[in-house]
Amino acid sequence: MNMEKVNSMDFGEFVDVFGNVIERCPLIAAAVWSQRPFFDLEDLEKHFFAFIDALPQSGQEGILRCHPDLAGREQQRGTLTAESQREQSSAGLTSLSAEERQQLEKLNAQYRARFGFPFVLAARLSDRAAVPRELERRLHCQPAQELRTALGEVKKIGHLRLVDLLGADSSRL
Amino acid sequence: MNMEKVNSMDFGEFVDVFGNVIERCPLIAAAVWSQRPFFDLEDLEKHFFAFIDALPQSGQEGILRCHPDLAGREQQRGTLTAESQREQSSAGLTSLSAEERQQLEKLNAQYRARFGFPFVLAARLSDRAAVPRELERRLHCQPAQELRTALGEVKKIGHLRLVDLLGADSSRL
Repeated sequence: MNMEKVNSMDFGEFVDVFGNVIERCPLIAAAVWSQRPFFDLEDLEKHFFAFIDALPQSGQEGILRCHPDLAGREQQRGTLTAESQREQSSAGLTSLSAEERQQLEKLNAQYRARFGFPFVLAARLSDRAAVPRELERRLHCQPAQELRTALGEVKKIGHLRLVDLLGADSSRL
Repeated sequence: MNMEKVNSMDFGEFVDVFGNVIERCPLIAAAVWSQRPFFDLEDLEKHFFAFIDALPQSGQEGILRCHPDLAGREQQRGTLTAESQREQSSAGLTSLSAEERQQLEKLNAQYRARFGFPFVLAARLSDRAAVPRELERRLHCQPAQELRTALGEVKKIGHLRLVDLLGADSSRL
């Protein structure tokens, strides 16, 4: 998909295509449409990230709370978004042993209780062995620092989703 | 549901219950959870509305763009949220004649082209005869005024949804 096509979309088409760049936050894609035309992928992405950065802390926490646990209840129930399902699968998180799953569940619960949002990680850049190690490490971070780290992961996930959507055609106009 | 129950919810439960108070914007419920405990329905609602009011204009337009057209494509396809389906049905918008539907489609398209967001109206406070009249009237309003009017409708819809969820038990603690 090239940028000419993106810039020609009405808001309905735009939200259909980009609504899940930020997990379960179509509001953000719908807001970003106001900033068109976009020059290239980097420019489009800049507007998504600027929107996130400008939210009050409660809104930034809200974005995180729209994310599912890794290898959690939603994955078990099959209610993940298509993007999340693909990402968790690519990290091997859909084929854990019962023991590995229980370990992650326990760590996820501790993380949620400590920070008030779920552990968010760009799963495609990780794997089943690294996820629990990273979760354990981040469990001991300070809340303000951890919020920044988690939002950084949201942006990595969004970047990879935009690359998937725009592909090699996302060159400058 | 009483407020003690609401205040005891973790963010996952809270978003499950209140995630569609603002149509397709679970991010807002997820952000509002940061403000707990809530005193009563009015207090809870105040936090939803304050979040909306604090967004930049693009974010407020984004909220509107997450709403479906009245008697539009999504209603035809059966992809409305349960709340929207009920509201449009209560206004008689699910049993329009072909002619009435076409008239609304035309007006909805004119409105979207003029303002860059869909026509939003608290359908439960209206009916099939009043909807096209109101749409035609608002089509001629100035954009800044119309944005305020539309956000006022979002709040009326949110209020009615909160009353449905909290019911008679939503008295003060």
